[in-house]
Amino acid sequence: MFVLEPGGRFESHIGNIDHEELVGKTEGSWVYTKTGHWLIAFKPTRAEYTVNMKRIATVIYPKDIGTIINYSNLFPGARVVEAGSGSGALTIALSNAVGPSGHIYSYDLRKDMSELAKENLSRISETPDNVTFKVEDTSVQIDESDVDSVIFDMPEPWHCVSNAHRCLRLGGIVLSFLPTVMQVSDFVNSLKDTGKFALINTRELIERPWDVGARSIRPSHRMVAHTGFITTARKCVPRDEDT
Amino acid sequence: MFVLEPGGRFESHIGNIDHEELVGKTEGSWVYTKTGHWLIAFKPTRAEYTVNMKRIATVIYPKDIGTIINYSNLFPGARVVEAGSGSGALTIALSNAVGPSGHIYSYDLRKDMSELAKENLSRISETPDNVTFKVEDTSVQIDESDVDSVIFDMPEPWHCVSNAHRCLRLGGIVLSFLPTVMQVSDFVNSLKDTGKFALINTRELIERPWDVGARSIRPSHRMVAHTGFITTARKCVPRDEDT
Amino acid sequence: MFVLEPGGRFESHIGNIDHEELVGKTEGSWVYTKTGHWLIAFKPTRAEYTVNMKRIATVIYPKDIGTIINYSNLFPGARVVEAGSGSGALTIALSNAVGPSGHIYSYDLRKDMSELAKENLSRISETPDNVTFKVEDTSVQIDESDVDSVIFDMPEPWHCVSNAHRCLRLGGIVLSFLPTVMQVSDFVNSLKDTGKFALINTRELIERPWDVGARSIRPSHRMVAHTGFITTARKCVPRDEDT
Amino acid sequence: MFVLEPGGRFESHIGNIDHEELVGKTEGSWVYTKTGHWLIAFKPTRAEYTVNMKRIATVIYPKDIGTIINYSNLFPGARVVEAGSGSGALTIALSNAVGPSGHIYSYDLRKDMSELAKENLSRISETPDNVTFKVEDTSVQIDESDVDSVIFDMPEPWHCVSNAHRCLRLGGIVLSFLPTVMQVSDFVNSLKDTGKFALINTRELIERPWDVGARSIRPSHRMVAHTGFITTARKCVPRDEDT
Repeated sequence: MFVLEPGGRFESHIGNIDHEELVGKTEGSWVYTKTGHWLIAFKPTRAEYTVNMKRIATVIYPKDIGTIINYSNLFPGARVVEAGSGSGALTIALSNAVGPSGHIYSYDLRKDMSELAKENLSRISETPDNVTFKVEDTSVQIDESDVDSVIFDMPEPWHCVSNAHRCLRLGGIVLSFLPTVMQVSDFVNSLKDTGKFALINTRELIERPWDVGARSIRPSHRMVAHTGFITTARKCVPRDEDT
Repeated sequence: MFVLEPGGRFESHIGNIDHEELVGKTEGSWVYTKTGHWLIAFKPTRAEYTVNMKRIATVIYPKDIGTIINYSNLFPGARVVEAGSGSGALTIALSNAVGPSGHIYSYDLRKDMSELAKENLSRISETPDNVTFKVEDTSVQIDESDVDSVIFDMPEPWHCVSNAHRCLRLGGIVLSFLPTVMQVSDFVNSLKDTGKFALINTRELIERPWDVGARSIRPSHRMVAHTGFITTARKCVPRDEDT
Repeated sequence: MFVLEPGGRFESHIGNIDHEELVGKTEGSWVYTKTGHWLIAFKPTRAEYTVNMKRIATVIYPKDIGTIINYSNLFPGARVVEAGSGSGALTIALSNAVGPSGHIYSYDLRKDMSELAKENLSRISETPDNVTFKVEDTSVQIDESDVDSVIFDMPEPWHCVSNAHRCLRLGGIVLSFLPTVMQVSDFVNSLKDTGKFALINTRELIERPWDVGARSIRPSHRMVAHTGFITTARKCVPRDEDT
Repeated sequence: MFVLEPGGRFESHIGNIDHEELVGKTEGSWVYTKTGHWLIAFKPTRAEYTVNMKRIATVIYPKDIGTIINYSNLFPGARVVEAGSGSGALTIALSNAVGPSGHIYSYDLRKDMSELAKENLSRISETPDNVTFKVEDTSVQIDESDVDSVIFDMPEPWHCVSNAHRCLRLGGIVLSFLPTVMQVSDFVNSLKDTGKFALINTRELIERPWDVGARSIRPSHRMVAHTGFITTARKCVPRDEDT
């Protein structure tokens, strides 16, 4: 993945290409490398962009991003809190999903993360203005209220459960993406302890690539075995036993 | 899942509720059934709506819908061809993903399917006007041109490959969702035979639910083992061997 | 699964058969039910027997039994400690794997379990005499020494780690089958704490059934999502930091 | 994996060891490399041996070997036909499973394969004499009769179905291990076409490794996604429609 520049050159193990050979060509064009191999040029999809962009920490895989967007029930116009921004992979997808009439409030403790996420967003998003980046601690405070979803991509979201509850609208969805089982356990138990979240569910998504040849059709030999667990819950009215 | 109506009653195995008990209550409220159990009321998410709405054929599962939306690289303003409409589960997600500035052209051979999809869409979508339903055969003709994606949820998409190619913009994405291996094989080989699609990839998504109790944390005992295979490819310029 | 008896009748939803119709027929014979359907009769495999035999607790699935046998490196003549006997599903497979020259010492806390396991074993094993059943607590004592493997199919094997170490030969394998993640964590940490086990590994086996029709070839729609985690480790000499 | 030899040296990226340092040590002993790291020495399990031994073609993974042994219902004394021998990985497990009173007839078309399998077997098996190697074509002839199982680990077992049927006893099990879907389809359809096999089932086994640390417990990041499909069926009496 690269940006076309005057005098630029793309180098690969099957030969190099001068950027100027691509200038003026349509997307999906083939070019011939200096050592006699064909390469094809496409504008990256958001998924390809996010796995190749500059990053500090691990980014969420496309398979999980699709599921997070779907299970957090986003829609054009939705207002969403994201903690943390990370390198911006999920921020980019959220910005896209809520569109120009929605808004993302993206928190991160680290200034360098927040700035990188902003830079990565600005290079791909059609609607970069629908994201506000904040270098603040969501376990201390979340400024917004009546948001539709709160999405955690941070190591210890259980410290933020009461703030997440406060800023969500009734029926709104809290979602976490967590790599290890003990984190899931701590988060789920924090949600349950409040008595103010219902429909608490956890699942993992496993993506299995397939090789489809003329007669040889089979799953690929190796795959990513694990990325993370996705937990969702909905804010509810506490059950009033006296009613 | 039900619509509140005057005089309506919701019946379940743990007791009944008169609809009027819910009128005026906020989302996420608890109600007490006539036999002494608690129930909680939420407006359904799109995912919950699509698996519970009226349908003629099988609908695509939420786990696949999230992935289809993400891998077809949809964005606010995108123009997309969908074939076929089915009961509208995917149509609803597509309508949502491209927002008010985008458009979905949803084809189906069957008039009853098309009408049911339209009805299901109208009850949940915030932007039902961004979908045009057509009772036409995409293997004969696709009317649009320069669309960003063509998405097949029909049994024999290989008959539509040349029409899909014609209506896509360069770099645009064709995607199929197919339940059996032989269908995938036939579709992939049709794409390859044209010489005008690149980056052809197939994968399946497996969603594994987890049970998270205080100390008992484990995958659920049973799960959906299979829904379908997702194939994607991008329209490219044919490789001109004479260049 | 049934035993042929004089006057016996097998009842099924597609019709009944008198046992005497099967007497004298070879294995793999077809019989015609009284309501006009065909049934086929086979002697059960060990795997079929163990999932259908009389049982008190859950039995280990065939997919896990094959893996347990293989990963505990059993061989004709091996001497193995099993805790606990349960309904005997694993005992039957162990008895078979070590053959007439080997021996299984099968412990259980419960007398009824031990007796049921013995009864189930006696009805299928070719070598029932190679198993000694004991109603004793392996967290208190394991009587044997220099055994080749110790296999735990019980809820809290971490209480038995020092006894397992004592009764194993150097290089011998300890293996546990545990349904939940926290149990695996406690067992693995107990093994590590001793400093006398090496090559500690955990994995789960997922069996995915396929439907293979003339043209419709795909994974089955539903499957068992989870049974248990298999942990193995080998007894080693403690590392002498002073060497 | 290596054999101790006078003057031998084991080289690794964390330092070397002279074989003589291991002579006289018990299994499970630690040794200190010349660059200051600890290594531990074990006699390999059959599973470890088969994935590390000299081989010409791909060998079957331990996870599949355990399942093959279990689903082919082997027992001490069983008589089994194996086609083909390959590098002997499965042969070693079969030899072990049927014990000194059983016998394996292991066919391969290639003399070099057959000889390598024999050599690999002789170095690990406790009962190498219970295997007879044959350089013959099982699609032309299988010499044995009344065997308990026929196990195919070869590319086109559908050419051998009638010979497999002939050599099996009634109720005996035919099993194939095949890497691609089309092979499974061809084999299953060949079995069905005979009308003389029942209980035809196909499944795949997926082994997912876990990392269990003090607090970080999760599936490993990467895994083997696919090895092969295991199909089993039992020889039956043809259904006599005239009965």
